[in-house]
Amino acid sequence: MTPPTDAEPSGRPTALPTALPTALAELRRALGPDRVLAPDEAAAGFVRDERGLLPAHPAAVLRPRSTAEVATAVTLCARHGVPVVPFAGGTGLVGGAIPLGEGTQVVLSVRELNRIRSVDAADFAITAEAGCVVADVQRAAAEAGLLFPLRLASEGSCRIGGVVATNAGGSNVLRYGMTRELVLGLEVVLPDGRIWHGLRTLRKDNTGYDLKQLLIGSEGTLGVVTAATLRLFPRPRHQAVALLALPGLGALAELLALARELLEERLSALELFSRTGLDLVLSQLSDTRDPFDRPHPQYVLIEATATRDGAALAAALEGLLAEAIERGLVADAVPALDPAQARALWALREALPEAEKRAGGAVKHDVSVPLGAIAAFVEAAEQAVAAACPGAVVNAFGHVGDGNVHFNVLSAGGSSAVDTSAVVYRVVGEFGGSISAEHGIGVLKREALAAARSPLELDLLRTVKTALDPQGIMNPGKLLA
Amino acid sequence: MTPPTDAEPSGRPTALPTALPTALAELRRALGPDRVLAPDEAAAGFVRDERGLLPAHPAAVLRPRSTAEVATAVTLCARHGVPVVPFAGGTGLVGGAIPLGEGTQVVLSVRELNRIRSVDAADFAITAEAGCVVADVQRAAAEAGLLFPLRLASEGSCRIGGVVATNAGGSNVLRYGMTRELVLGLEVVLPDGRIWHGLRTLRKDNTGYDLKQLLIGSEGTLGVVTAATLRLFPRPRHQAVALLALPGLGALAELLALARELLEERLSALELFSRTGLDLVLSQLSDTRDPFDRPHPQYVLIEATATRDGAALAAALEGLLAEAIERGLVADAVPALDPAQARALWALREALPEAEKRAGGAVKHDVSVPLGAIAAFVEAAEQAVAAACPGAVVNAFGHVGDGNVHFNVLSAGGSSAVDTSAVVYRVVGEFGGSISAEHGIGVLKREALAAARSPLELDLLRTVKTALDPQGIMNPGKLLA
Repeated sequence: MTPPTDAEPSGRPTALPTALPTALAELRRALGPDRVLAPDEAAAGFVRDERGLLPAHPAAVLRPRSTAEVATAVTLCARHGVPVVPFAGGTGLVGGAIPLGEGTQVVLSVRELNRIRSVDAADFAITAEAGCVVADVQRAAAEAGLLFPLRLASEGSCRIGGVVATNAGGSNVLRYGMTRELVLGLEVVLPDGRIWHGLRTLRKDNTGYDLKQLLIGSEGTLGVVTAATLRLFPRPRHQAVALLALPGLGALAELLALARELLEERLSALELFSRTGLDLVLSQLSDTRDPFDRPHPQYVLIEATATRDGAALAAALEGLLAEAIERGLVADAVPALDPAQARALWALREALPEAEKRAGGAVKHDVSVPLGAIAAFVEAAEQAVAAACPGAVVNAFGHVGDGNVHFNVLSAGGSSAVDTSAVVYRVVGEFGGSISAEHGIGVLKREALAAARSPLELDLLRTVKTALDPQGIMNPGKLLA
Repeated sequence: MTPPTDAEPSGRPTALPTALPTALAELRRALGPDRVLAPDEAAAGFVRDERGLLPAHPAAVLRPRSTAEVATAVTLCARHGVPVVPFAGGTGLVGGAIPLGEGTQVVLSVRELNRIRSVDAADFAITAEAGCVVADVQRAAAEAGLLFPLRLASEGSCRIGGVVATNAGGSNVLRYGMTRELVLGLEVVLPDGRIWHGLRTLRKDNTGYDLKQLLIGSEGTLGVVTAATLRLFPRPRHQAVALLALPGLGALAELLALARELLEERLSALELFSRTGLDLVLSQLSDTRDPFDRPHPQYVLIEATATRDGAALAAALEGLLAEAIERGLVADAVPALDPAQARALWALREALPEAEKRAGGAVKHDVSVPLGAIAAFVEAAEQAVAAACPGAVVNAFGHVGDGNVHFNVLSAGGSSAVDTSAVVYRVVGEFGGSISAEHGIGVLKREALAAARSPLELDLLRTVKTALDPQGIMNPGKLLA
């Protein structure tokens, strides 16, 4: 006979109806009443879904001010089997920080943990608490003469806890890597409330399993990140930017290889967009103009950065343009002659999401494929979408230097979102790609993940989850069903 | 009442005395008799400890020829509770691939899995089986015009399975990262014999916990790596090398910062050694000479590499030397004027281990500390060793661009190895450092790890081990006691 337990082996917490009020009362007593927001206060804009796709009905919102208070909060929630949803900037795109259910999950905000604990220029490292806004970390690094390279559209509001929990990418990944590559150490409150003091500043440390790797990208399902030690870099002071017109996608792989060969790590961005995308921007947004005198099928924005010798950097980019044109990879090119022109070229690329929105929205697919397969993937996926959903307009763009394509289908097509996504993800699978390059899984891609991964991989994910969070208390229902 | 189980919860396998002969008979039947070497054949040089510190008494050596055969072998061993010790190049320095006990553990060699499965130049990726020698992978990449950047003293004999399992470092880490940074995907036989097909070629993939990170650096305790997809890079065709004489260790952090600022990622090596080290080399090895006309307390070998424009690279290094001398960070400098001179300067650095050996050997400590703490650490550790062991001679050198110091104590000191190590590791801990930067834990550093990490971290390591290898079948006794 199996003895009764507080938690089912499935990892689903089994809080009794009476456990939640008791837990909230104890939390108020332990943290102070002002640290525990009631649902109505909490609903007043505090917990929101960035894309407006999900309702949020938390049981309460906890606002601890220190790692010790986070530990206290998690300990009490664990004791009563109350699920905890870690919350930082609230800028996620897959609902990972939105409580599920109707008032049964407690949101734990790390926003009050917002100190930069140290900037160690000689170590090329910064230690920031989970509630620090990314832009503030960038600023603190810049004040020390260094660069914190994470660059995201949401950098003014997203926070360190969130970017670590989601392994955020952005537009500097090509040179500096994802958040994973930037993390040297973590401080984490584990699902049982213990504090793991894993803040380290080491470049090399082969002493057992690299535990921090499990937490990075775990989307709050294995613990609450309370602070991170992050890598800093010399600060580039020079930038060279050009917009290239491509005769077609076929030139892409060779262009990327040539750019890496000539610019090496100074290559910091290689961003693709199509004529469809440029037309969208030009038609939806004022103050934009086509930099070329005739239309081309594809465009690549290229950027290189360097700490010193801007003239040599510009010359290297010009050399690349000349060689690319000579090889027939590029039909035309517009180099930016000053920072204002560079900003104007970047603005065309950065306006794509807004232009999509104004044109009526799009079904977004943040996918990745091997570098050499980008052109073939985009063409195959476009054909598959056209077959499944005649008349649909595809706007494919993205960080192609990393194989990351935002394969978005404009809703003009009329078919349902689910159908298009299934089609796109099927083609992604055929190319050995990923259904989520940057955005993670959260709740919105949970079913897609279950379909895309093998039973063995799903089993391994569940094994890790159950081992580190046997009670299933941390962000249940995210990542895994 | 607890029902009887085949494995204790501690993870210790409990093979019955009769299980081993049965398992070996089944292995012979399944793999073929020539794939199962008896202990006497195996002992004939097949399984050996690189440093000669450990005896090896395997029950047998298995030599499967494919991933499927590895899976068969592990399945049979798991069924009978027979421990499996994965073995690749046999060049490890901590006994991680040496069977423990007297004929109770089976060694599983992956050497026969030695195909390069594919070189995908457009993806900047190569897929190699675990038995491939690292030098052969380098060669295959070079034939495709690209670079596989792992560079190790043992690259002519160490193998892919081993470098993944130990997260190998080497002399190119500063520019390209450890093995962890080079792995895009893995194929692994899990402790229950299932095959995880995780070979991917993606730069971005945020779909759940990054499982491959657990296997990398796990030293064979979580599964058998059978193949890896690895990152390739544009191949540098130019190299600029110089030997710098430092007035003391105090200049080190600023010199590193200046080198990173001026050379950016082209900086590929920054290797420290002291006058003690140079004297050792000059006295123990013929055909060596001091490149400077007078002695200096410390030396730094600096190397930068680039794909194109060797003249610009040389100019950048010269600019660094000029600025470093002007700031008083460097007392004198010898730039290599041609590849032969570059090799001669590197030879001084690379001769250090051999010179130590000829001088009577040393107690080696492969440690790391934060970049800014190298000078203070070396000084504090030297003082601590001098206090504990008067007359001991310290030879501290290493990849200081990564904070990695080989803090070696020449045995002339007369004190026991254990005493010196305890002293050194205590100082490492005071500086927030690691007791194993590159070499891993294996069996030789197992007790040191247990002493250096917090009980919570050791508990987390055990939790991961137990979750993925509940039977405790994979390389038991390594990493964790």
